[in-house]
Amino acid sequence: MSDFRFDLKATDGAARTGVISTPRGEIRTPAFMPVGTAGTVKAMHPQHVRETGADIVLGNTYHLMLRPTAERVRQLGGLHNFMNWDRPILTDSGGFQVMSLSKLRKLTENGVTFQSHIDGSRHELTPERSIEIQCLLGSDIQMQFDECPPFPISEEGSRESMELSLRWAVRSKQAFEEKASPGNALFGIVQGSVFEDQRRRSLDELLKIGFHGYSVGGLAVGEGQEEMFRVLDFTCPHMDTAKPRYLMGVGKPSDLVGAVARGIDMFDCVAPTRSGRHGQAWTKNGPINIKNARFIDDETPLDADSSCPASSQYSKAYLNHLFKAGEYLGPMLLTWHNLHYYQQLMADMRSAIAEGRFDRFVKEFEEAQGADG
Amino acid sequence: MSDFRFDLKATDGAARTGVISTPRGEIRTPAFMPVGTAGTVKAMHPQHVRETGADIVLGNTYHLMLRPTAERVRQLGGLHNFMNWDRPILTDSGGFQVMSLSKLRKLTENGVTFQSHIDGSRHELTPERSIEIQCLLGSDIQMQFDECPPFPISEEGSRESMELSLRWAVRSKQAFEEKASPGNALFGIVQGSVFEDQRRRSLDELLKIGFHGYSVGGLAVGEGQEEMFRVLDFTCPHMDTAKPRYLMGVGKPSDLVGAVARGIDMFDCVAPTRSGRHGQAWTKNGPINIKNARFIDDETPLDADSSCPASSQYSKAYLNHLFKAGEYLGPMLLTWHNLHYYQQLMADMRSAIAEGRFDRFVKEFEEAQGADG
Repeated sequence: MSDFRFDLKATDGAARTGVISTPRGEIRTPAFMPVGTAGTVKAMHPQHVRETGADIVLGNTYHLMLRPTAERVRQLGGLHNFMNWDRPILTDSGGFQVMSLSKLRKLTENGVTFQSHIDGSRHELTPERSIEIQCLLGSDIQMQFDECPPFPISEEGSRESMELSLRWAVRSKQAFEEKASPGNALFGIVQGSVFEDQRRRSLDELLKIGFHGYSVGGLAVGEGQEEMFRVLDFTCPHMDTAKPRYLMGVGKPSDLVGAVARGIDMFDCVAPTRSGRHGQAWTKNGPINIKNARFIDDETPLDADSSCPASSQYSKAYLNHLFKAGEYLGPMLLTWHNLHYYQQLMADMRSAIAEGRFDRFVKEFEEAQGADG
Repeated sequence: MSDFRFDLKATDGAARTGVISTPRGEIRTPAFMPVGTAGTVKAMHPQHVRETGADIVLGNTYHLMLRPTAERVRQLGGLHNFMNWDRPILTDSGGFQVMSLSKLRKLTENGVTFQSHIDGSRHELTPERSIEIQCLLGSDIQMQFDECPPFPISEEGSRESMELSLRWAVRSKQAFEEKASPGNALFGIVQGSVFEDQRRRSLDELLKIGFHGYSVGGLAVGEGQEEMFRVLDFTCPHMDTAKPRYLMGVGKPSDLVGAVARGIDMFDCVAPTRSGRHGQAWTKNGPINIKNARFIDDETPLDADSSCPASSQYSKAYLNHLFKAGEYLGPMLLTWHNLHYYQQLMADMRSAIAEGRFDRFVKEFEEAQGADG
């Protein structure tokens, strides 16, 4: 495990900027990881993903274990080779998507059995199998297997789930130590819903087990931004300052800015890619829906000053036309633009933190974005 | 019209290679023009279209006049600016697609009235309006307005249609001379179905009117390759050797090779793009369907020696996975690969003709491709 390292370069208030080093390359933090669910960041050429500034992408254990299967990916040279992405990849544990996508789930102490949403075939995920799959994929940063409870959930229900995730954390680490390759990393996941004492216990126990990094899970599940920030407010101060902190499944730009302000280093979210496919573009002044009739004659690009071709070389009128005509290029360009916007936002935050002006950055960001950012 | 020029560089039997010069750049012939129906070569970034070796793309008057409309394209700076393609564009006249796509058509001496297949709105295309639209789009090479008869058609039916297209040719040229910009070109279209005397009369009359180039229309409509070649055999020898010859809507690779052998200089076809979206890839050894189960574990790329990333950087197993998972990247990569394959075929033909070894090239091509090429 000698090759995985996190170096904090600067802090500004609770906000941090640093570099995660892995055998496959460096990850500048705060980092946003585009989601490559089924071995592709949807509608993007991998070269373009890299050109937006992404240092790492995320792959989904649940999707890949079902199709094309982890064993097949391994046989084809691993996920990096399979999807033509030679930089770091983080994989989730499959736990979250088993809960949200599969059918006929059965949860036991041992793990989860479920039916594939694709073909109805039966599968099992346990901490051991999740880690085995992540190793077969060749994942650089792996996640412990955890249970993702719904929101809202009773205090008692949340506690039981959190304790189960802790027991699975122990088994995940054991499996990781047996199977992972040198330089791979394993992150623990803090659970406990919106309950401060539970988050605290989850974190304390995970710190005792010891991980390369710590994720905050179970947020962005409907609790709202204010409640999410409240959980971060009482969780982040107790996290290991020497390890990366990853807020899973978050979020829109204002979520990222607010979470970075509270000390988070890593994010993933389908927002820029999914919304890009549906015609939503993020801009400096907030999100717009390019299908709106007001863009039909708008000859300005999404961002004339951007270095991204999708942002600067096509008019809003053209993008509007592409979506109306149902052309592939519409989702392709808007996804590219949104990913570039997200990576630029991360780069801007890294600079602001390094230069000790993050408070001013947040203020200017909020003023420019308006309410929907 | 001083800036449009065709320079024949070499001939080898009936096959020719040369360069068409336009104010927006040169077109190396024999040339294949990717089809950008609605202002986009489907599933392709324009930069990648260019990188495949395409010197020119085709736009469809019928689609663009309906959406976003020619007047809107003009107001947005013309089709080149609209679709971010600064090299030559050829537009068809709309005649063919009115016949194949629109509803409630009514054909008169003056032109065609029809209902849009998109929203049912009523429109009229005449020789004058077709040229006006092509000028509004900013097309570099425009097509005369013609009638495209079905196949098969009676000798008398074909003759009437061909004569109407000749009268429309005169009106198209008149309109072009009034409206086109310096350096623009207008091509006449030889009609007459499979009837030698009609093709001959159509060509002779067009030569009298005088055009910058001559197209062979009304082929690739179901007559089969043998019959198509028979028509070219009795048509091409009478065409003006000093002007480019364009075979419209053709074709698969063996069609291109056979037509170049008969003296054709330019082609367009949806085959590489459409079939790429549906999982068909052209290779040196003929077409394959990447969705076929035999590719599920095939770690070889479509063409390891290709300079095109889509051809060389992804395994067939990955492409198979992308199509099975319904991912955008599948059509994106296969379209890119197919366009590159087509452009490489054109480049290889140009070299073979220039070096006087086209016969051998054809023989080797046919041996490698097998029956389906």
